[in-house]
Amino acid sequence: MHPDELRNLYDAYIDCLNSRNLDQLGAFVDQDVDYNGTRISLAGYQDMLKRDFEAIPDLHFNITLLCSEPPMIAARLNFDCTPSGILFGVAVNGKRVKFSENVFYEFKSRRIRRVWSVIDEATIARQVKEA
Amino acid sequence: MHPDELRNLYDAYIDCLNSRNLDQLGAFVDQDVDYNGTRISLAGYQDMLKRDFEAIPDLHFNITLLCSEPPMIAARLNFDCTPSGILFGVAVNGKRVKFSENVFYEFKSRRIRRVWSVIDEATIARQVKEA
Repeated sequence: MHPDELRNLYDAYIDCLNSRNLDQLGAFVDQDVDYNGTRISLAGYQDMLKRDFEAIPDLHFNITLLCSEPPMIAARLNFDCTPSGILFGVAVNGKRVKFSENVFYEFKSRRIRRVWSVIDEATIARQVKEA
Repeated sequence: MHPDELRNLYDAYIDCLNSRNLDQLGAFVDQDVDYNGTRISLAGYQDMLKRDFEAIPDLHFNITLLCSEPPMIAARLNFDCTPSGILFGVAVNGKRVKFSENVFYEFKSRRIRRVWSVIDEATIARQVKEA
């Protein structure tokens, strides 16, 4: 696969998330997906995203960097949102916070098979304290 | 530049860090390097690494994932170490901790010009609490 093809596929995955179209997630995510070393499966991946959308009603995934080398792609995602309650153990309670996620994906047969994510949780606590 | 060439250059940069050869850092890092959106310059980059090596005497950079698409490369680095005192605000005090960093680099003329890093700080606090 050409790097641009994987980039387009990843863009379509992010569009699926941003349109809250979780019924279509199986078009992009493998049944046996692993997340940070744990097999969570497609259903677990959908549940994780549902919880994210409940915790952050205005959640939007903004791609700011992409590094595509099939079958791997790495993305830097930026978030600018107002989590309604507790997020990552921090009582955000509707305050506006900005944070980043740097995340790697390994694709298999055009679907995400493994994910390794690091979210900048510490910056959220700092922003809520400062607010 | 071919993806493998950038991969080899990045390997050499990591070898430079792991050999504590900070006098040679200028061979890999641009004078005007930005780190997470702030111009810290080569001298500031060296100072940051010196502080890291003081805080974590057994610090070793282990590359576990690489995604190379020149002029960008993304790496997942794993750390397994015993920070001597406080790290990221957590009193680790010699306990053994494991954590990851997902980091993007943009190269310019074979040197690192911009870095976007996210370190899994939250996992360190959890490991110290559980120990």
